[in-house]
Amino acid sequence: MKILGIDPGTARLGYGLIETKPSLQYIDCGVFEPRTPDSGQRLKLVSDKLVELINKHKPRLAVVEGLYFSTNKKTALSVAEARGVIILTLTQKKVPLMEFTPNQVKSLVTGWGRSDKKNVELAVGMTIRLPQNLKVHDDAMDALALALCGSFSMRTVGKR
Amino acid sequence: MKILGIDPGTARLGYGLIETKPSLQYIDCGVFEPRTPDSGQRLKLVSDKLVELINKHKPRLAVVEGLYFSTNKKTALSVAEARGVIILTLTQKKVPLMEFTPNQVKSLVTGWGRSDKKNVELAVGMTIRLPQNLKVHDDAMDALALALCGSFSMRTVGKR
Repeated sequence: MKILGIDPGTARLGYGLIETKPSLQYIDCGVFEPRTPDSGQRLKLVSDKLVELINKHKPRLAVVEGLYFSTNKKTALSVAEARGVIILTLTQKKVPLMEFTPNQVKSLVTGWGRSDKKNVELAVGMTIRLPQNLKVHDDAMDALALALCGSFSMRTVGKR
Repeated sequence: MKILGIDPGTARLGYGLIETKPSLQYIDCGVFEPRTPDSGQRLKLVSDKLVELINKHKPRLAVVEGLYFSTNKKTALSVAEARGVIILTLTQKKVPLMEFTPNQVKSLVTGWGRSDKKNVELAVGMTIRLPQNLKVHDDAMDALALALCGSFSMRTVGKR
């Protein structure tokens, strides 16, 4: 079962795909940067990219970073706009959705809510067996961590 | 030329339509309340309603309330999600978009940025000749005021 993790943003969208069966493993990740000054076009490109990823990989679950209150209000609002578009697009494409906040992700992945980026990176890398020489952008790593959290929850709630 | 004003929200969307030619006049307004606890479905219903309004009235311009920093952060983020969905839907349907903040609307409609709701209501009512016995919801009135601001700007930038 494929799980798609999404780190939302209007300037940059991080995405990560993992497979859960027969065992957890890495499939793909990356960042998408819609380069246009027009906010409507930017949101449309984000939605189009997401549709492309869904059509290509057919994920059974998507995990999106949940609402949180950043210190930069303007960034927070612009990320929320992208989040709205992502949630709409997933709903239109009938992909079930889970949400985790950054602290929940750290807790689930490393066992401690205040771990730093490096700890998260190491834990994700080991768990999904990331190719060692692969350069992963921070936002793509966040997306992979989100997908991993989705897989943990599936194991908790689903049949084993 | 028809102009569609939109006051975004996930719990309630206000909309208002005016005609600019041969003279400014009221066409329609209302509020749409998607009643479902699921945030994805709520955003989808908002998008569907907007598509329905666009298909029915074929507005040449849409005016959406711009980003502003409410005192209630959670509400602000949830409104921003709806705004993202509205901007995406307008872009997908190729409806040009303008944005005004609440203070800009008050300034443009009444001549003073700190007017109260009653002043805005009176100014809008007179300018677009609202039927006197029509009960208009606050959020629909905000949407009509936004549409009116759009018409002022068209007159400023367009040919006369």
